[in-house]
Amino acid sequence: MNFLSDNAYGAAPEILSALGAANSGVAMPYGEDAVTVRLAKHLEEIFEHELAVFPVVTGTAANALALATLVPPYGGIFCHQESHIAVDECAAPEFFTGGAKLAHVAGEHAKLTPAGIAEALTHYRGGVHSSKPSAISISQATERGTVYNADEIAALSELAKREGMALHMDGARFANALGYLDCKPAAVTWKAGVDVLSFGASKNGALCAEAVIFFDRKHAQELEYRRKRGGHLVSKMRFISAQLEAYLENDRWLSWARTANQHALKMAEGLARNALIEVVEPVQANEIFATFPDSLVAKLRAAGAQFYDWRPSHNGRTLVRLVFSCLTPEADVARFLTLVSS
Amino acid sequence: MNFLSDNAYGAAPEILSALGAANSGVAMPYGEDAVTVRLAKHLEEIFEHELAVFPVVTGTAANALALATLVPPYGGIFCHQESHIAVDECAAPEFFTGGAKLAHVAGEHAKLTPAGIAEALTHYRGGVHSSKPSAISISQATERGTVYNADEIAALSELAKREGMALHMDGARFANALGYLDCKPAAVTWKAGVDVLSFGASKNGALCAEAVIFFDRKHAQELEYRRKRGGHLVSKMRFISAQLEAYLENDRWLSWARTANQHALKMAEGLARNALIEVVEPVQANEIFATFPDSLVAKLRAAGAQFYDWRPSHNGRTLVRLVFSCLTPEADVARFLTLVSS
Amino acid sequence: MNFLSDNAYGAAPEILSALGAANSGVAMPYGEDAVTVRLAKHLEEIFEHELAVFPVVTGTAANALALATLVPPYGGIFCHQESHIAVDECAAPEFFTGGAKLAHVAGEHAKLTPAGIAEALTHYRGGVHSSKPSAISISQATERGTVYNADEIAALSELAKREGMALHMDGARFANALGYLDCKPAAVTWKAGVDVLSFGASKNGALCAEAVIFFDRKHAQELEYRRKRGGHLVSKMRFISAQLEAYLENDRWLSWARTANQHALKMAEGLARNALIEVVEPVQANEIFATFPDSLVAKLRAAGAQFYDWRPSHNGRTLVRLVFSCLTPEADVARFLTLVSS
Amino acid sequence: MNFLSDNAYGAAPEILSALGAANSGVAMPYGEDAVTVRLAKHLEEIFEHELAVFPVVTGTAANALALATLVPPYGGIFCHQESHIAVDECAAPEFFTGGAKLAHVAGEHAKLTPAGIAEALTHYRGGVHSSKPSAISISQATERGTVYNADEIAALSELAKREGMALHMDGARFANALGYLDCKPAAVTWKAGVDVLSFGASKNGALCAEAVIFFDRKHAQELEYRRKRGGHLVSKMRFISAQLEAYLENDRWLSWARTANQHALKMAEGLARNALIEVVEPVQANEIFATFPDSLVAKLRAAGAQFYDWRPSHNGRTLVRLVFSCLTPEADVARFLTLVSS
Repeated sequence: MNFLSDNAYGAAPEILSALGAANSGVAMPYGEDAVTVRLAKHLEEIFEHELAVFPVVTGTAANALALATLVPPYGGIFCHQESHIAVDECAAPEFFTGGAKLAHVAGEHAKLTPAGIAEALTHYRGGVHSSKPSAISISQATERGTVYNADEIAALSELAKREGMALHMDGARFANALGYLDCKPAAVTWKAGVDVLSFGASKNGALCAEAVIFFDRKHAQELEYRRKRGGHLVSKMRFISAQLEAYLENDRWLSWARTANQHALKMAEGLARNALIEVVEPVQANEIFATFPDSLVAKLRAAGAQFYDWRPSHNGRTLVRLVFSCLTPEADVARFLTLVSS
Repeated sequence: MNFLSDNAYGAAPEILSALGAANSGVAMPYGEDAVTVRLAKHLEEIFEHELAVFPVVTGTAANALALATLVPPYGGIFCHQESHIAVDECAAPEFFTGGAKLAHVAGEHAKLTPAGIAEALTHYRGGVHSSKPSAISISQATERGTVYNADEIAALSELAKREGMALHMDGARFANALGYLDCKPAAVTWKAGVDVLSFGASKNGALCAEAVIFFDRKHAQELEYRRKRGGHLVSKMRFISAQLEAYLENDRWLSWARTANQHALKMAEGLARNALIEVVEPVQANEIFATFPDSLVAKLRAAGAQFYDWRPSHNGRTLVRLVFSCLTPEADVARFLTLVSS
Repeated sequence: MNFLSDNAYGAAPEILSALGAANSGVAMPYGEDAVTVRLAKHLEEIFEHELAVFPVVTGTAANALALATLVPPYGGIFCHQESHIAVDECAAPEFFTGGAKLAHVAGEHAKLTPAGIAEALTHYRGGVHSSKPSAISISQATERGTVYNADEIAALSELAKREGMALHMDGARFANALGYLDCKPAAVTWKAGVDVLSFGASKNGALCAEAVIFFDRKHAQELEYRRKRGGHLVSKMRFISAQLEAYLENDRWLSWARTANQHALKMAEGLARNALIEVVEPVQANEIFATFPDSLVAKLRAAGAQFYDWRPSHNGRTLVRLVFSCLTPEADVARFLTLVSS
Repeated sequence: MNFLSDNAYGAAPEILSALGAANSGVAMPYGEDAVTVRLAKHLEEIFEHELAVFPVVTGTAANALALATLVPPYGGIFCHQESHIAVDECAAPEFFTGGAKLAHVAGEHAKLTPAGIAEALTHYRGGVHSSKPSAISISQATERGTVYNADEIAALSELAKREGMALHMDGARFANALGYLDCKPAAVTWKAGVDVLSFGASKNGALCAEAVIFFDRKHAQELEYRRKRGGHLVSKMRFISAQLEAYLENDRWLSWARTANQHALKMAEGLARNALIEVVEPVQANEIFATFPDSLVAKLRAAGAQFYDWRPSHNGRTLVRLVFSCLTPEADVARFLTLVSS
């Protein structure tokens, strides 16, 4: 019963098969292979827009490279105070940008709002004494398992444009967000004003594959240089691209994400039947945030359930996070619920 | 007939099988999995020394992370003027170190010598006006396919120690060097004074796997932080470690490297029979550097041979590089030689 | 009536005279001159401790260089959310450290407390996913014109030591703080656990002179390199050092600071007589933070008073800041009070 | 007899007087004062072009800030292998640019040529594996006391433009170069294709004053941010600007430079009368490079002459550098020549 993280699970069999298929014969290294070329075309169809795509192996690399391309070293980046770039990447954005400043902004459900950013901006009016506001970064889905709809994104984009800022989306769980929204990828990306997307696959069945996707190719050359000097230009690139290709094929990415989301929903429904448990965030993607009595937490762990305490125990209750992968066994969800209800 | 690069070839079947084997069940992410733990132990046996090992996916990442841990931002790094860190990594060492200076030093066969570095050091006597000499970096095998023996390394190490510098080894083709030297790994690393090794596997049959190996664990924590913020902490680390484990198992790494080296030797012997061709560097690892008449270059390419011009054509002759992988078909070598001799 | 900033005033006549005196004959450049050597000795007497001193021309340089020497690029720095390094230096600490993370901590009167930092530390328990807590930085006097006493500093230092962090003091207004505390410099620096002090003079009568002061000389070499590559090694250093020497001579720095503090106290007493004005921070150094009715703000400005709005107008009242220099004419204070009371 | 460096001398009296004059009353800090505004206008008249000017206190800061604004972190900068940015600034350009690569290019008389750069460029054809060629940086006058004429600069500019590179001029001794060329400042700057000039004054009579001058104001905002976060925005800026204003007034800068140049010429003429001395570089600015018998070097030093050995003694002779300031006493030149000839 592992609900620690979607990356505690391995790779989907289709991903491994794709590696084998990509392994025939020689290929130009550094992304000049046929698979990488095909991948770009396929993504353009899926997103209904020209784009520049850069496969990398971690979400941190994708985020940091994307932001470094959009934000000068003297720039400021507005992000949620619980966002991955703010608290889980060991200041990788600061490293890759050459010292840009992340403004940590509060917001319900780990979501940014125009009002929240507008308030934060009032602290950035010092001319050169403050960093130059340069980008907004949102997570889709968020670190609390919630999802921005197209209107929310467009409102943030409008503010960004007005202030001369770019809009970055950390899509480590982009498929899960789409699975919830049930809309086209374009609707919540470039059509809503997103300039660059960190397109995740590792948390949703891939082995080690993410991609930076720019919706304006003018950034391509800069990203290429930055990826190389960041040590993120994998020589046998075809094996990263092949994962992404298999991921997209037959809409696997969406069906896998829906499976993970359904696990979360099923679990949430079960938890709701226990009055001692409070689910504290809307369950929209593949994560549940809920407070449990500490005694129940201890009992679940004793029975083999694994999950993270999201906040330290307080007044006898603990906020825990449960994460679901497409590879999470349905039986584990059922068994966890049995433990909860018994 | 692809002699462009060892990374034009794919992955050895044993590497792909290892990915499948590593894919069973859940595992702690970020290197806390069982495979990664086993890998460290295995490497300690192979190197006969305690060590700290950090799997990453590119040689550039391995080099840059290793150097950033040893060299302050105000430091100077002495390397060969043709070394990979000097000319093929888009200034990744400068990026990861925060702006250290690479001193490009000349030397026959792409090898550094104590005399060469001593001469370069005379330009670094300006106190704080110059960078602080902090590390020597050597490539084993070198970018010209040559190999340092243990005494040569020890002599460089002695100079390094005397000047308060660390010694880094770029071992993207370390197995090929060992295959030539036919000695134990310890003999040309820590026993010869090497502080940190970029241990390559991708060019010798792996899919995307390299490792930073420190022979003093005191550097471990710093490297861990730097790897994370460089975006090089792969979440499903077991899949990188599994490649390295399979690579080491049954001394595959050494037998694969010997195969590649033998291809090079066989080709070199064949080329020697053509008086119009001059092999200009000792063939010690898996690369050949030779000058060909331009007409022969054209004929070979017309027949489907792929290889890089290492220097532009000059006086009707071109310096070309031929690289061999353990996966290079023996028939390709034979066919190339037939073309050369006909 | 200029209460905008202590740096709106020029230099004290004694400082200018010192420049003239330092201008006789030749001198070794880059800090190897006699004045700089004397300065170091004088500071050691004043601080009753061996130290390494590095004159620079701005407080931002002093802070950023000091922090970069103590904090690795992957480090975290705990500072008040209103501190100069957090909001007024355009992310210079992030630049000089190579991307360290500033954790903005709240606290009354712009002061940090052990409890506040302990709370912030709970967000830095992610191993390499978070920055490594590396330093606490306090401002003495603070950005709200308040002053830490020796016990408060010692308590922060104790926490710092326990957590493996260094303690930095931004002393842009250190003389003003000492003037209030009426204690020896040692009592609130190294004796209280401060590792490095940014010793300010520009805001208190100097032309352009600050100094980084380390209380452990082991950091000296690193700071020297960093100062040079930051472009902060002034060639004719004697002219910076001469300002600092004149500043210290005959305890001028302390008497000047006391003059500025007395201006602030006198103004605060006067303001207290107007029930419409609320002084919102203890007046301990040379700054006053008070809320005024907007109508009064307008009237004062119309009469020629200059000062900054510290927060935008809210409910008809504005938080303003009034700053006093030793060079502020006493008549200006009197005239301002007359305007306020009429 | 001090010929060590032009910065071993102090400040001209007119510079010190200007500081006193600037010290009357209050002034807006951070460059919004009247002197700084006037300075910009005066420089526009002198250069006959709109420009953006940024006073700083060191040449290293001017160079590093200028280059960081023109060159991306993944960029390459072509400079002479003996240039100040290459060997005397402790890798400040690498620091400020975020890790750009300096390509050290050879060239007679410490001057770059289009042919030299074209050759160097052949090593930068690796796509993203090499840094992106982004700027050429020349020193005017050079580190060997030689001077580029307008045609030489235009030829370099032409190459720069063709390759998409900017052209930077390190003018630490710009006045000395102009004094030699006897042309208008415009002729060897923007009219010859220079994008940005590090305009020096410290080596020619100022106390601590240099300026970054962009001939296209579009770079102004970026430079402002970079200057602030580099700690180079001096709060009481009027005192830096006042030095530059006094420097320019009545063409003092040019007459001072001519004085220094004349010292050099007079010395060179005298040295030429001693057959044992060989002046090895054309004497065009305020420096002499000459080889002396070691015995003569010893004799001169014993008599109190101070100067640097530029290269270690070789075959009984040493290459020495003699530098002249406008403040060098004429008697010192005469006395040195007497020693040489006796």
